[in-house]
Amino acid sequence: MALLFSSILAGLVLIIYLTLTVLDKSPGNEKTEKISRIIQKGARSFLMQEYTVFFPIVFALAILFGFSSGWTKATAFVIGSIFSVLAGFFGMTIATKSNARTAWGATRSIGEALDIAFSGGAVMGLVVSVLGLLGLGIVYLVFGLEEITFYSLGASFVALFARVGGGIYTKAADVGADIVGKVEANLPEDDPRNPAVIADNVGDNVGDVAGMGADLYESYVGSIFSAIALGYALFGEKGILDTLYIISFGLLASIIAIVFVKVLSKLNTEPAKALRLGTITASVVFLVISFAYSIMEKNLNLFWTVLVGNIVGVLIGLITEWYTSGKKVEKLAHSAAMGPANVIISGTALGMESTAVITILIALGTYVSYRLAGLYGVAMAGVGMLATLAMNLSVDAYGPIADNAGGIAQMAGLDKSVREITDKLDALGNTTAAMGKGFAIGSAALTAIALFANFGSAAHVQSIQLQDPKMFIGALVGAMLTFFFSALTMNAVGDAANDMVEEIRRQIREVPGILSGTTEPDYDSCIKIATKGALKRMVTPAVLAIAAPIILMVGLGVQAVVGLLIGATVTGVALAIFMANSGGAWDNAKKYVEEGHLGGKGSFAHKATVVGDTVGDPYKDTAGPSLNILVKLMAITSIVFYSIVGRWL
Amino acid sequence: MALLFSSILAGLVLIIYLTLTVLDKSPGNEKTEKISRIIQKGARSFLMQEYTVFFPIVFALAILFGFSSGWTKATAFVIGSIFSVLAGFFGMTIATKSNARTAWGATRSIGEALDIAFSGGAVMGLVVSVLGLLGLGIVYLVFGLEEITFYSLGASFVALFARVGGGIYTKAADVGADIVGKVEANLPEDDPRNPAVIADNVGDNVGDVAGMGADLYESYVGSIFSAIALGYALFGEKGILDTLYIISFGLLASIIAIVFVKVLSKLNTEPAKALRLGTITASVVFLVISFAYSIMEKNLNLFWTVLVGNIVGVLIGLITEWYTSGKKVEKLAHSAAMGPANVIISGTALGMESTAVITILIALGTYVSYRLAGLYGVAMAGVGMLATLAMNLSVDAYGPIADNAGGIAQMAGLDKSVREITDKLDALGNTTAAMGKGFAIGSAALTAIALFANFGSAAHVQSIQLQDPKMFIGALVGAMLTFFFSALTMNAVGDAANDMVEEIRRQIREVPGILSGTTEPDYDSCIKIATKGALKRMVTPAVLAIAAPIILMVGLGVQAVVGLLIGATVTGVALAIFMANSGGAWDNAKKYVEEGHLGGKGSFAHKATVVGDTVGDPYKDTAGPSLNILVKLMAITSIVFYSIVGRWL
Repeated sequence: MALLFSSILAGLVLIIYLTLTVLDKSPGNEKTEKISRIIQKGARSFLMQEYTVFFPIVFALAILFGFSSGWTKATAFVIGSIFSVLAGFFGMTIATKSNARTAWGATRSIGEALDIAFSGGAVMGLVVSVLGLLGLGIVYLVFGLEEITFYSLGASFVALFARVGGGIYTKAADVGADIVGKVEANLPEDDPRNPAVIADNVGDNVGDVAGMGADLYESYVGSIFSAIALGYALFGEKGILDTLYIISFGLLASIIAIVFVKVLSKLNTEPAKALRLGTITASVVFLVISFAYSIMEKNLNLFWTVLVGNIVGVLIGLITEWYTSGKKVEKLAHSAAMGPANVIISGTALGMESTAVITILIALGTYVSYRLAGLYGVAMAGVGMLATLAMNLSVDAYGPIADNAGGIAQMAGLDKSVREITDKLDALGNTTAAMGKGFAIGSAALTAIALFANFGSAAHVQSIQLQDPKMFIGALVGAMLTFFFSALTMNAVGDAANDMVEEIRRQIREVPGILSGTTEPDYDSCIKIATKGALKRMVTPAVLAIAAPIILMVGLGVQAVVGLLIGATVTGVALAIFMANSGGAWDNAKKYVEEGHLGGKGSFAHKATVVGDTVGDPYKDTAGPSLNILVKLMAITSIVFYSIVGRWL
Repeated sequence: MALLFSSILAGLVLIIYLTLTVLDKSPGNEKTEKISRIIQKGARSFLMQEYTVFFPIVFALAILFGFSSGWTKATAFVIGSIFSVLAGFFGMTIATKSNARTAWGATRSIGEALDIAFSGGAVMGLVVSVLGLLGLGIVYLVFGLEEITFYSLGASFVALFARVGGGIYTKAADVGADIVGKVEANLPEDDPRNPAVIADNVGDNVGDVAGMGADLYESYVGSIFSAIALGYALFGEKGILDTLYIISFGLLASIIAIVFVKVLSKLNTEPAKALRLGTITASVVFLVISFAYSIMEKNLNLFWTVLVGNIVGVLIGLITEWYTSGKKVEKLAHSAAMGPANVIISGTALGMESTAVITILIALGTYVSYRLAGLYGVAMAGVGMLATLAMNLSVDAYGPIADNAGGIAQMAGLDKSVREITDKLDALGNTTAAMGKGFAIGSAALTAIALFANFGSAAHVQSIQLQDPKMFIGALVGAMLTFFFSALTMNAVGDAANDMVEEIRRQIREVPGILSGTTEPDYDSCIKIATKGALKRMVTPAVLAIAAPIILMVGLGVQAVVGLLIGATVTGVALAIFMANSGGAWDNAKKYVEEGHLGGKGSFAHKATVVGDTVGDPYKDTAGPSLNILVKLMAITSIVFYSIVGRWL
């Protein structure tokens, strides 16, 4: 516990230092500052409205929990929800403060730009880890072990809203801006004449930063919760302490690595090298300390499970990269010469194919970690993947900051060299981000399996009878839900994008000065459309995730819920991998053509790859990542709901 | 047994009569006859080559079974394989004899054309049912119950090859012909100047007729097998006899309905009405006889399960139609105004959304039929859906015949009125075919659940332990396999279509006389490309289906195989529904635009819907339908393999 709180404290100190560093920098000239302020305002206003939509539900649930399970549990649930919101909100605030500063820094040197963008991203990474552990520590110390379930539920519940809402917002704006801007009006990316350009940049922040922050907060908390619960069941207090030690080592290692990257960027090290060295440092330091601890505790299997998690995570990341870059993407781009239909068929097949090796890696990781330390081992492999989250998320969140900086540079008419620097920084983040995605998918699968086992223990189900088809019925429904959920989120993006396209077309048609650049377009109306579209359509998917296990448990009993969790998990994992990799490959195929291959920008092949990229947007940034949360949220809901109604079933 | 063989005999008599009716008609003028002969030759040559690819594998497996399980079982396996081949081959032969005759009949009257096309389709429908029951009866009487497992395995194994091989062939030719013909060279459908036009028509026969025949033969045999096995386990001989009675009633009802449609078409009844009345007659007669039998046997639950199967099948058909026509399709077509990316996003979401109600219907059907008569009830609900297969398949197979007739009319330059009649006949079949698809999907799910239970009994697994993740690992792999399998088949279509596109482009470029219509294109080279592409790429998916359960059983044990079957079934069902309905909706959205909406043919919206339709082709005609077979083949493989190696596990 002492170590846990020390590392939290160290993290807090670093957060304050990094925040001050960022704020200390100049936000640039009047124009960059103004654009940055509009983006900030749009992003904040969206988050605030999002909160007014889901906090009433959170409080209603809390009151329900209060009466049914006691007020300590209700409080834990609210803490989980609020901390999740705080992580997203604070991280995004600093990110939106960093973008103009990064652009301005790039007018001086690439090292300076890297330093600012990375510091902004690191605040996000650290805030997520620190708040996750702080909440967990407080809930555990003040209330106890049982309340952690409710804390974890709060985190997952808010994460689903943030991911789905942010995902709809960002992709509606992106798709809308692309369809009219790039395809019809032939405007380049981030052109200030595009009415949706600010909404697009706001979307990067509410989706890729705030949404991702809440998402990873959920993964982090969920994996630790499942390990603590299984550890306690198997080894008592010791199981809890081991988990907390390991996760603290991860935070400490991340802190060291973040400081190291800061030093490297001050020394003007090549950015790619600095980020790579930082990521490797975090992993190595974490593994070395964990190894030493395991030896000290004479429990080497603890280290092995963590190592298995790390290796599987890295391998998934490499496979992900293999499928979304290089030869695979070149082949995909070449299919564009036959037209958009072939790009879609080939990209779909590519994503589906990629499920094979990744699933087998997850299966192997599960098997080996189970052999090492039972189900606790499976959970610990998941924890091992996410332990250095603070460092990995720093790199993840740095990408959108650099991306936004590029947008601001473009809109403010800064020198071309600025955009070149930010583009370079943005591209760098992608490779490391592929690793991050591998860890996210892998840990989601392992955590879901661990949570499933937790539900089994909680509901006292040792086994399921094959001669009773209730489990099978539940599994059918679970598998279907992942598809239905994806349909809801993709339809939401499609519908909101359509509204956006009509608004952009209307503005361009009615105000001729927009395209010639003499009149400023009405950015606000586009922001409002994206906001409204996201808020309206994020509720049903989230409610579905909560309602499904409840309905099945009441209607068909616990065996059906077991099936539900199996079906949803295995289908959700496959669907999430497919969507992430198809989307990633389409994105990069477009970039490959834009680099000048196959006729370059504006060619027939380019238009075909733009279609692929547009289809991939909701796949990889809305539906796909939400599935990871959906699966875990259903598992935790099942555990909580059983604890409430189990005695009457 | 007497009833079974009487109905088989009645079916045989009707087959001979219908065959003679068809052959008796004139195949038209020299041109139609010649084209019909080329199509026939291409289709036969493909099937023959297909057999040389998989029969060596069949015989190798048979020898393996002979040594491990005895030669009666090996023989049963070979009978299942050969009968499946015969059903596809004979049905297709008559279909290819019917197409030119239908076109020629349409020069006289629509009634005459309907009569010929329906007779051709009815031969297919009857052959599948009659051979299915004949094989089953012979194997059961001569060898015994255990051999039926091997008979069913043979049917499934060959079906997967026929479906995948035929599916790759037909869609490679279709996509290739469309991309160059329609999009690049602006040729209408079935234009004789398109070098791939014959290959396209051959594809309809080897895919939509022979492939579908083998597929439904498999479904039919599989559902009966699972009911017989579960029935015997629960009620002894009585369970077998009940099943055979019910299925015989279905064949008799179909025979009556087919004769009825023939009479109606002679009376020049409106074709739509004739087909609808025929389908209803089959169902009503079947249900009435089944009801009487159930009362006689004082086992009314038997009737209820069959009725549940029928109702669920009809409802799935209606939902399928709702999603692939009318308002849903109009909305999809309207999204085309925003471009191809929106069509793909909306169509994907539509298909995923459609999984919800259909899965819930399957779940309800499973639950109710289980409550009525245990797992035997679930299997009987599946049998109830497929009992009138002979009639339903008649309508299914009639569609491609009318379609082919239209192609021949176009190529031979017959009067425009002929094409109008065949188009009308073709469109009619679609509505009834939607029902048929509902029955196919529903029965596949129910049969898979029943086969799963069979495996449980065969392998003596009563329950699975939740604290052991082996089941979960198996389920992850099973879910993944359905995606990986789809990737393989879709890639196969994509690659073969690319080869086709290049060949068509080459011919048009090198021989200028082709487009002006003075030189006949080289049809044969396109046929060869489709044949080669299909044969080369159909082996891996089929081998995968056999290998996966074997590897898991040997590597991780029976619990993992239980998981494999759960994961593959629930994901396969969802994926198959998604692909079928997205594909169907895209197809109809294109047709909707071609009717003159949204600018009609050649408009921006039309081009966008053509992209959707092209993507949907491998979804709905290659990957989707193969998944149904894959899932059942894995279950039967597991049962058979356990019977061989179980004693050592």
